[in-house]
Amino acid sequence: MVLSVISPLAHFHPFIPAGGVGSRLWPLSRADAPKFLLDLTGSGSSLLRATYDRLAGLGEGPVMVVTGRTHAAAVCRQLPELSARDLVLEPSPKDSAAAIGLACMLVQRRDPEAIVGSFAADHVIEPADAFQDVVREAVAAAASGRIVTIGIPPSSPATGFGYIRAGAELGLQGAPHALQVEEFVEKPDEDTARHYVAGGKHTWNAGMFVAPASLLLRHLAASQPQLHAGLTEIADAWGTTAQDEVVDRVWPGLPKIAIDYAVAEPAAAAGDVAMVPASFTWDDVGDFAAIRRLNHVDPQTDPDVTVLGDNSRVLSDSSSGIVVSDTGRLIALIGVEDIVVVDTPDALLVTTREHAQRVKDAVASLKQRGNTDVL
Amino acid sequence: MVLSVISPLAHFHPFIPAGGVGSRLWPLSRADAPKFLLDLTGSGSSLLRATYDRLAGLGEGPVMVVTGRTHAAAVCRQLPELSARDLVLEPSPKDSAAAIGLACMLVQRRDPEAIVGSFAADHVIEPADAFQDVVREAVAAAASGRIVTIGIPPSSPATGFGYIRAGAELGLQGAPHALQVEEFVEKPDEDTARHYVAGGKHTWNAGMFVAPASLLLRHLAASQPQLHAGLTEIADAWGTTAQDEVVDRVWPGLPKIAIDYAVAEPAAAAGDVAMVPASFTWDDVGDFAAIRRLNHVDPQTDPDVTVLGDNSRVLSDSSSGIVVSDTGRLIALIGVEDIVVVDTPDALLVTTREHAQRVKDAVASLKQRGNTDVL
Repeated sequence: MVLSVISPLAHFHPFIPAGGVGSRLWPLSRADAPKFLLDLTGSGSSLLRATYDRLAGLGEGPVMVVTGRTHAAAVCRQLPELSARDLVLEPSPKDSAAAIGLACMLVQRRDPEAIVGSFAADHVIEPADAFQDVVREAVAAAASGRIVTIGIPPSSPATGFGYIRAGAELGLQGAPHALQVEEFVEKPDEDTARHYVAGGKHTWNAGMFVAPASLLLRHLAASQPQLHAGLTEIADAWGTTAQDEVVDRVWPGLPKIAIDYAVAEPAAAAGDVAMVPASFTWDDVGDFAAIRRLNHVDPQTDPDVTVLGDNSRVLSDSSSGIVVSDTGRLIALIGVEDIVVVDTPDALLVTTREHAQRVKDAVASLKQRGNTDVL
Repeated sequence: MVLSVISPLAHFHPFIPAGGVGSRLWPLSRADAPKFLLDLTGSGSSLLRATYDRLAGLGEGPVMVVTGRTHAAAVCRQLPELSARDLVLEPSPKDSAAAIGLACMLVQRRDPEAIVGSFAADHVIEPADAFQDVVREAVAAAASGRIVTIGIPPSSPATGFGYIRAGAELGLQGAPHALQVEEFVEKPDEDTARHYVAGGKHTWNAGMFVAPASLLLRHLAASQPQLHAGLTEIADAWGTTAQDEVVDRVWPGLPKIAIDYAVAEPAAAAGDVAMVPASFTWDDVGDFAAIRRLNHVDPQTDPDVTVLGDNSRVLSDSSSGIVVSDTGRLIALIGVEDIVVVDTPDALLVTTREHAQRVKDAVASLKQRGNTDVL
């Protein structure tokens, strides 16, 4: 423990940008019940709570949460130990660069030597101790003056993720697995993805990174000066009586841009990015097929149908797939294969595993049609 | 009109045995909301109400309804003009011979020369005037001293119905289409059904018949003496102060048997049965595929998905089938073909048109599992 106090971990400040509805999980996820507030693994914890616990388990300092104002109450209910100082509320969604940039600045004002870590609120990671080992290694690598992303060794040629192309070993102290990052690449087509997986140089970009706050903000200032200036004005007013006035005036005009474009890509081009490969399992719970994967089947019931909810209220006859229900209604499936049924008090989804990725488009259609009461 | 008064129609007393839950339409149909109480055609009338109106339209005397005690209130709500005298309540279900036999006896005590007509409460028949013409012909044929069934010319080699094999023309006055019935045959296999349809001598047995009450009861007495004796004891006490005591004592011990076995088959063997072919369309609304057939598609919406309920609450993307909803919930279908979704406040069914006939088995499973709250 004495060692850890003098290690870079003493300056490590993790935060959780908790934004995004996760509309591929509608009607489970809603504007007022985003994916990160849901328990999708049957563990009894929301994804946010589990993310927070994984980071708090690193044992150093508080974990900060950045979320929308509308989610403040729900986040506080799920994280009662979170102090008001560590809850950063966005007046409106402005994409990840604004949220992460502001968190960086607020952390840096507490600790000028801060090494920040950004971890999505709605991913499933196991086991926690393997995750923490990797984060410790990333912190050590970041202490060398790099933005360190955590790469997920690909288990399939997925086309839904961006990839990270790694190069030479860096031989950093405390970070034996750290590699130079040559490039971030956009979501590939399937052939390209196959090529990436076979080549062994590419990992999935899960959007997790650790970096010195000063380095991250230097890249942000260079690539997005207007955003950086606006965030600086807000951070300077934070905690003063001027905070509300400044936030309400400046925030609405901030550019909307993802941290990938604003920081990660230019930093990689400048040779400032490293990657530590993950030694844990990771799932972004991108659709209902993922929920099926993440929930263990009760061997007492039909092994072909995964139920997230009350098993005793689901009858299945010659059917397979997943049922998600928070209504307690009796659900009977007869002769439907690879089906996805999501039953909520005001909305019902019926699709198949194959089409589960199209739920996002359906949500867009509902918005267009004016069925906003269920979004 | 003068002519009709002196015709056999003056002695015609139609009744409607309204029993049977229609469990192939679960979860729309329930023990306390049987099929005959539902509006399944989008007409605004329940099947019972439509049946009653078709028969009342014949213009002769009251229409009697035989139903379970538990449905008394609902039946009275749907048929406010029904007098208490014409509502016969069974304490418990005893199959069709008991219900029809009792109705016959009660009618005969009002009119010894009664010609009764029995018409299921839960079929869809159109148009009403063609139906009435056929019934008038059946009444004329019955006046010759025959049990007259109405045969449905088969539109397909259905295996879900019994068939009627007809023989020679009878040349009866007022019943030019009446044929001798040679035999009632049980539900055939598909090859046999094809043979029947090709041969032109077979019609579907829709369970509708017209007969002199005395003839029907003579056959019942011969084939089911115990049932006949029990029903006679009840009919003798009907309307007296002893009615409740006698019904409660005698009814529970009555044999459970269908009118087909108790009367129709032995009467056919004795040469006492005739058949008048239907010149109307008939549907027994046997499953959800039938509901799709019977409900006209709104051309403004997806022609591939039939909605019984609020169209504006159903979103369909690359899907086809039928949605029945009485909840007002938003229902999204994505990439599901020939799907059947039935959404009620406490139970949800998801199946396909192909498997819709198996709903009955699912209801049996639910009973066995103890999910009786939704039956």
